Amino acid sequence: MTSPESTARVAFRTAGRDDLERMVELIADDSVASRRTGSFGPAHVAGFEAIDSSPNDELVVAELDGEVVGVMQLTYIPGIARNGATRLHIEAVRVDARLRGLGIGRLMMEHAHARGRERGCALAQLTSDKQRPDAHRFYRDLGYVQSHEGFKRSL
Amino acid sequence: MTSPESTARVAFRTAGRDDLERMVELIADDSVASRRTGSFGPAHVAGFEAIDSSPNDELVVAELDGEVVGVMQLTYIPGIARNGATRLHIEAVRVDARLRGLGIGRLMMEHAHARGRERGCALAQLTSDKQRPDAHRFYRDLGYVQSHEGFKRSL
Repeated sequence: MTSPESTARVAFRTAGRDDLERMVELIADDSVASRRTGSFGPAHVAGFEAIDSSPNDELVVAELDGEVVGVMQLTYIPGIARNGATRLHIEAVRVDARLRGLGIGRLMMEHAHARGRERGCALAQLTSDKQRPDAHRFYRDLGYVQSHEGFKRSL
Repeated sequence: MTSPESTARVAFRTAGRDDLERMVELIADDSVASRRTGSFGPAHVAGFEAIDSSPNDELVVAELDGEVVGVMQLTYIPGIARNGATRLHIEAVRVDARLRGLGIGRLMMEHAHARGRERGCALAQLTSDKQRPDAHRFYRDLGYVQSHEGFKRSL
């Protein structure tokens, strides 16, 4: 395979309902996330519909030669901290496991940053499970500063 | 002073425009945040208005005996990861520096969790600067798992 590091082969678009099962499959196909994603069902449909109707959330899919190979969720968070900055908050970044290391993830993040700038964001932020050292290197290489501890709690 | 660990003395409400200067003051009054918050100005007003008009964001103030002594921003993020869970995302938690260690922060977090449950959130998440070890202990004591690395990048 030629490297997909070519915008001619990789394209981005807002996800539609028809992409949902594939997106859930991508999110679940991961040693860290598989045990918590669950098999496809009504909860994913409800989650998709809530994102689709939110003015501040969007799901983006990456296509390689027309096939969906990546997904990420972008949330635009307005704020009064950091001099009123709007934040681009990124969740659920996933590239098809068979296609990792080819530069698709980098193109996705560059697309996310461009979308954030379009929405007036001054800052991008994300967290990554401490079990993912390769992802941490990836984000540092993209200019991210590993400045925070990330906390989660069930409600 | 008697301990404020009494719901009779501490009350919560959605912040209004009249609270904005006090909230910015609280957010800036901090060794880590002061250099990035900026003095009060139009950018804070624009940030407040964007939060106020967003269906998924809210600023909450804590009052002690009727005086604003704490602030936090709550964002409800719908999702398709984690079996379609909605996340309660918490930013800019701050208690008046003169009143720390009295239990106000804990009451604020309990209020945040209650709001999250009302909105159907299955998960609460936040990040905390690596320079704040006391805050990390505070969140762990509240049942948070320090499972993620937090990354930020200017856009």
